[in-house]
Amino acid sequence: MTHSGQAETRHDRKDAPTTDRDRVAIIGAGHVGATAAYALMLRALVREIVLIDSDPAVAEAEAADLSDANALARPGKIWAGTYADAASARIAVLTAGAASHGAESRLTLAGRSADIVSTCVARLVEAGFAGILLVAANPVDLMTLVALRRSGFSAARVIGTGTLLDTSRLKQTLAEYFKIAPGAIEGLVLGEHGDSEVAAFSTVRIGGLTLEQFCKGGPEIDRIDVERDVREAGYEIVMGKGYTSFGVATAIVRICESILRDERTVLPVSTLLTGQYDITDVCLSLPCVLGGGGVERILTPKLEPEEAAALAASGATLKAAIAATLADYATT
Amino acid sequence: MTHSGQAETRHDRKDAPTTDRDRVAIIGAGHVGATAAYALMLRALVREIVLIDSDPAVAEAEAADLSDANALARPGKIWAGTYADAASARIAVLTAGAASHGAESRLTLAGRSADIVSTCVARLVEAGFAGILLVAANPVDLMTLVALRRSGFSAARVIGTGTLLDTSRLKQTLAEYFKIAPGAIEGLVLGEHGDSEVAAFSTVRIGGLTLEQFCKGGPEIDRIDVERDVREAGYEIVMGKGYTSFGVATAIVRICESILRDERTVLPVSTLLTGQYDITDVCLSLPCVLGGGGVERILTPKLEPEEAAALAASGATLKAAIAATLADYATT
Amino acid sequence: MTHSGQAETRHDRKDAPTTDRDRVAIIGAGHVGATAAYALMLRALVREIVLIDSDPAVAEAEAADLSDANALARPGKIWAGTYADAASARIAVLTAGAASHGAESRLTLAGRSADIVSTCVARLVEAGFAGILLVAANPVDLMTLVALRRSGFSAARVIGTGTLLDTSRLKQTLAEYFKIAPGAIEGLVLGEHGDSEVAAFSTVRIGGLTLEQFCKGGPEIDRIDVERDVREAGYEIVMGKGYTSFGVATAIVRICESILRDERTVLPVSTLLTGQYDITDVCLSLPCVLGGGGVERILTPKLEPEEAAALAASGATLKAAIAATLADYATT
Amino acid sequence: MTHSGQAETRHDRKDAPTTDRDRVAIIGAGHVGATAAYALMLRALVREIVLIDSDPAVAEAEAADLSDANALARPGKIWAGTYADAASARIAVLTAGAASHGAESRLTLAGRSADIVSTCVARLVEAGFAGILLVAANPVDLMTLVALRRSGFSAARVIGTGTLLDTSRLKQTLAEYFKIAPGAIEGLVLGEHGDSEVAAFSTVRIGGLTLEQFCKGGPEIDRIDVERDVREAGYEIVMGKGYTSFGVATAIVRICESILRDERTVLPVSTLLTGQYDITDVCLSLPCVLGGGGVERILTPKLEPEEAAALAASGATLKAAIAATLADYATT
Repeated sequence: MTHSGQAETRHDRKDAPTTDRDRVAIIGAGHVGATAAYALMLRALVREIVLIDSDPAVAEAEAADLSDANALARPGKIWAGTYADAASARIAVLTAGAASHGAESRLTLAGRSADIVSTCVARLVEAGFAGILLVAANPVDLMTLVALRRSGFSAARVIGTGTLLDTSRLKQTLAEYFKIAPGAIEGLVLGEHGDSEVAAFSTVRIGGLTLEQFCKGGPEIDRIDVERDVREAGYEIVMGKGYTSFGVATAIVRICESILRDERTVLPVSTLLTGQYDITDVCLSLPCVLGGGGVERILTPKLEPEEAAALAASGATLKAAIAATLADYATT
Repeated sequence: MTHSGQAETRHDRKDAPTTDRDRVAIIGAGHVGATAAYALMLRALVREIVLIDSDPAVAEAEAADLSDANALARPGKIWAGTYADAASARIAVLTAGAASHGAESRLTLAGRSADIVSTCVARLVEAGFAGILLVAANPVDLMTLVALRRSGFSAARVIGTGTLLDTSRLKQTLAEYFKIAPGAIEGLVLGEHGDSEVAAFSTVRIGGLTLEQFCKGGPEIDRIDVERDVREAGYEIVMGKGYTSFGVATAIVRICESILRDERTVLPVSTLLTGQYDITDVCLSLPCVLGGGGVERILTPKLEPEEAAALAASGATLKAAIAATLADYATT
Repeated sequence: MTHSGQAETRHDRKDAPTTDRDRVAIIGAGHVGATAAYALMLRALVREIVLIDSDPAVAEAEAADLSDANALARPGKIWAGTYADAASARIAVLTAGAASHGAESRLTLAGRSADIVSTCVARLVEAGFAGILLVAANPVDLMTLVALRRSGFSAARVIGTGTLLDTSRLKQTLAEYFKIAPGAIEGLVLGEHGDSEVAAFSTVRIGGLTLEQFCKGGPEIDRIDVERDVREAGYEIVMGKGYTSFGVATAIVRICESILRDERTVLPVSTLLTGQYDITDVCLSLPCVLGGGGVERILTPKLEPEEAAALAASGATLKAAIAATLADYATT
Repeated sequence: MTHSGQAETRHDRKDAPTTDRDRVAIIGAGHVGATAAYALMLRALVREIVLIDSDPAVAEAEAADLSDANALARPGKIWAGTYADAASARIAVLTAGAASHGAESRLTLAGRSADIVSTCVARLVEAGFAGILLVAANPVDLMTLVALRRSGFSAARVIGTGTLLDTSRLKQTLAEYFKIAPGAIEGLVLGEHGDSEVAAFSTVRIGGLTLEQFCKGGPEIDRIDVERDVREAGYEIVMGKGYTSFGVATAIVRICESILRDERTVLPVSTLLTGQYDITDVCLSLPCVLGGGGVERILTPKLEPEEAAALAASGATLKAAIAATLADYATT
C-alpha cells in the first residue's frame, strides 16, 4: 500500500471505482458545510458540489441559496443529493457531528459525534466512494480516527482539518501584533486541535528570522498569551455567535485545493501517526505533504524539548480519550 | 525622513469628508452581513471591512471568525467597530432589519424594519459618512426609500439590492432548464423585490436569440412556472434553513465591486424613480449604470404591454405600502 | 456521432483514448502560444501545460520563463514537450502558423499556414489525441477547416477562435464611447475573422435596450466607424508592435475555460456550418454553446436583412478562398 | 446636486501631491512592461494602467492589444500616456533600460541603462510623481541606486525587483527536485540580482524542517548545482527566446500587490543598505516588509559564515561596479 496509490488508480485500474476531479461531496449541510460549499464555489475549485444532510430540506434550502449566486459567479452545479452522488466525488468533506457547545471541551463531544461520523462513513463506503475523506467534525482528531477505522481506507486517504485553523490563528495573532501580513509568517501549531495543542514557536520564521531575532530591540512577545489566544479563539467565537464557520470553512477549502490540484503543498493536518515522536495509533496534526492521493508524506520538524514534551502529552491526552470513549476504534 | 511618509500623506487632510476606496462598512452582522463580509474577503475587493452590530459581541465573534481565515486568503483587516469607523468607508451595506419569517410578505416587515434602518442611517450621517449606502434590509425597496429620506443623500448614493438576486435566479432557472450557463443568458427581473416583481421575458436574450427563437423546435417553457419559481425561491429557502444568506451576499458583493472599481456596469438595483414608466417617489429596480458615484444612469428598456402594466402595478403596490406604513417617508 | 460524445467517452469507453481535465497542450510557442500559457497559469485553469514548438529551444525557454513564476502564483507544471505529451490533453491549442504581416490580408496567409497546420494536426492524430482542437492560427476560419478535414474529428471537436476577439473589440469600442463597462454590452461580430466580418448591431443590447434606444437623446454612434475600428484593430496593433498577443491569448483562455469547466456558455467561435443561413462547408463564427464536448449547439440569431446579406457575402468570400487555395479541404 | 458628486470630491484637492490607489504607470512598454500590465489586468489589482514609452506607437499598440481583452476580463482602463498621466500613479514601474544580451554580464549594462533610467526618473519627478518607484531595469541593483539618487526620494519609496525572481527560481528548483509545491518552501536568495547573488540555503524551511532534515534518508541535494541553475536561469531563457518576460512580470505584480493592498508582507527586494551586514551606499536585496509606503523595514536574517561572506562579497562587487561606471551616484 502506497500513499499515492490513489492517483495511479485513476488511469490504470479500469475495473475499480473512480473519482471525478470536478466533484466534492459535503456531508452535513450545517453552517460549516454550507459555508465551505460557498467558498469552494467562489474560488471555482470544482464544478459540482453535492450537499448531503440527514435533513434533506436543509440541504435543499442551502443548495438553492447557493445556486442563486450562480449567475453572479463562475457557475457550478450545487445540489442536495445522496450518498450515491458522493460515490464518484474526489473528496468527501465530513462536517456532520454533534453540535459543539461553548463551554464544552472538544473531547467530551466524542461519544456523541462518533456515532454520527461512523454512520456517514459506512454509507460512503457502501456507495463505493473511492476518494479522499476530509473530516471536519469535532473533536476532529478523534473523528478522523473513527473515520479511518470505519472506512478501512489507507491512512493517506483519511485526513482531519486538525490544526490548520489554529496555525492560521497563530499567524494572524502574530501578524496583528507585529503589523505585518500573516502570509509573511511561517510557523506551526501541532498536536490535538484542542486544549492540548502545541504552538511550536521554534518553527516560527519571518523573512528568515526566528521569533527572538524578529523581536530584538522591540517589546518581547508573551508566548503564553499568544498560545492561549490561539487555543481559545474557537470557544470565544462560539460564545459570541453560537458556532464557528468562516475560519474552518476556509481551512477545508485550502485542504481541498491541495488535493484537487495535486499541489503537494505542506499543511498541518490530522493524520494517523505510526511512531512519529513515538506516538502511534492516534490521529493528530503534523505538517503533511498533501496531494492528489491525500497525505503523501508526514514531516517531523525538530522541536525544542518543551515543545516535544507538550506534543507527547497531546498524544497521550488523545490516547486516553480514545481509551475512555472510543475503545472500539483504538486499533485496527 | 521616514519610510512611511507617503502613507501619512494620504490621511492627513481631515477638513473634507472623504472616502476610502479600501474600506467597506457592514451594518448588521447577522447571516447576510457576515456572509457578505466573507465574500468580500475571498474576492479581495477591499482591504478593510468593519462590522457594526447592535450586539457588539456578535460583531466581534464574526470578525474573529473571519479573521481566522486571513492567513489562508489574501489578507485584510476585519474588525467589529463603530459608526466612527464607518465614516470614511466607500460603501456602507445596511443589512440590519427586522427578521423575515417564511410565510410573511416582505411588505409587512416594513414598519418593524423602518425604525431600525432609520436609526442606523441617522448614526451614519451623524458620523459624517460620505460614501454610497447600499440597502439589503427587507422589504428592500421600502427600506431604500427610508434610507434615502433619512440620509438626505442624493438619489445616486442610495441603492437597494433590489431584483439583482431575482434576476440571477431567473437566469439560473432558465440555465437549468436549457442546460446552458447562466452567464450566457441576458434578462431582467424588474420592479419590487417581492410578490409584485416582473420577470421581463421580452428582455431575455441567449446568443442574440429571444426566448421564443431559442425554444423553437423544442418544448415551450412555461413562463408562469418560471416566474413563480423565481418569486418564491426566497420563501422556500427561508422555510428550509430559516433565512437566506449566500445568494443575497453574492448580490451585495457584485454591487460593491461595480462601485469600488467604478465599473459603470449595468445591474438591476432599487433606485428612486422620478417619472420612469410614469412612476415617481418610489424606489424599485430598473437596470442602472453603477459606478464609483453610485447610480449614474437609469435605463428604461422597452417592455411588452403586459410587462409595462405589471411594472406599473408593482409601483402602485409599493406606493400603497408606503402610504399605509411609511407615510413619513412618502416625499422629501 | 453526437456532439457530446467526448464527455461520455471519459467514463464509458475504457478502451478508447482518454483526456485529462488538467492538461492543455499548446502547439506553437510564439507570442500567442506563450501568452496564452501565461494567462492559463495566472487563472489556474489547469495544472499542466505542455508547450510544443518546431524549435524546441524556444519552447524550453518559454517554459522556463513561465515556470519561474510558479512560486509566485498558484503552481502548475509547464514544460516543453512532445506530441506524445499532448495525446491526453483535454485541449490542444493550435497557434502555429505562418507569420502575419501588417499589410497582408489574412486570406493570403492561407497557403503558407495550411501546410503547418496540416502537419501539426497529423502529428496530434498520430499521437492518439482525443480532446478538443482549438485553432488560433490565421486565417483562422480557413485553418479551422484544414484542421477539421485533416483530423477527421467530429465538427464539435474542432473550433476556431473566430470572432470572439472581434466581439470583445466591439464591446470595448462601444464601452469607451458610452463610458460604460464592456461587460454590460451584449452584441456579436459574426462571419469571417477578417475583412468580411459582420458587426451585427441588431444584436447589441445594453440593459435590455437596443443601440438606438440607448443612444436616444445623445449623439448617434457612427456604425461604419465602429465597424472599421473593430475590423482594423488587429492590423493597427501589428503595425505598432509587430504581432498581436494579449487580446487573442485572452480569447483562447476564455474558450478553454468554457470547455474545461463544461460551462455550456455561448461564445462566437468558428465552427463548420451545415446550412445555417444557407452556408455550408465553410467554418466561420456564429454564437455556439461551448461545453466539455466542444461546440454543442450552433445558434442562428435573427439578423437584419443587410446583416444577413453581409454574412452570406462573408461565407462566399471564405468559400472562394477555399476554392482558390485550399481545394483539397473543400469537402470531406 | 449631481449623481457623480462623490466622484468629483475625490479629485478636487489639487494643492498636495496625492496618489491614486487605482493607477499604476509602466515606463517602458517592451516585453517586460507589457507583460506586467497584462498580469496586473488579469489579477484586477488596479483599474488604470498607463503605458509610457519613448516610442509612442509601441505603447499605443500594446495598450490596444491589452484593451482588446477588456470585455473578457474584469475591465480596466489601459492607455498609452505621458508622464503627466503617471503623476498620480501609486506606483511607477520602471522597465525601460538598455537591452540585455545573453552573454553579457548584467553589470556591463550599467552605463547604457543609467542614462535611460536617469532621464525617466527626472521626468517623473518633474511631473510631480508622489508614489513608489519600482525599478525592474537591469542591472537592477545599480539602476535602483540611480533612480534613488536622481529622484531624491526617501529610500523607502525606491525599490528594485532584486532577487524576488531568483528566490522564486530557487523554490521552483527545489520544488521540482523534491516533487512538492514551490509555495511550501521558504528560503531566500540575497544580494545582487546577478552573478554574485547568494542562495542562502540556511534560510530554507519546508514544513519547519531545514534542508538537511528534509533530505535525511534520501539523496543529498547538490547545492552548487542548484545555485548555478538559479543564477543562470535568466541567461538561458535569453539564449532561447531573446529576452525574459513572464517570470519578471510576475515578480513585478507581486511587489505591486504588496504595495497597493498595503500588505506589509516580506519579500526579498533591492533596497538601499545603511549598514546592514556592514554594507552601505549600495542597493541590493534583503527581505523587506513591503507595504503602502514601500519598504517599511529591512530584515537581517542570521546567516551561516560562508553565506555572510558571500553577501559581503556581493556588496563589494556592486560597490566596485558603482565606482567604475556610476561614480556620480555613489553617494547623495
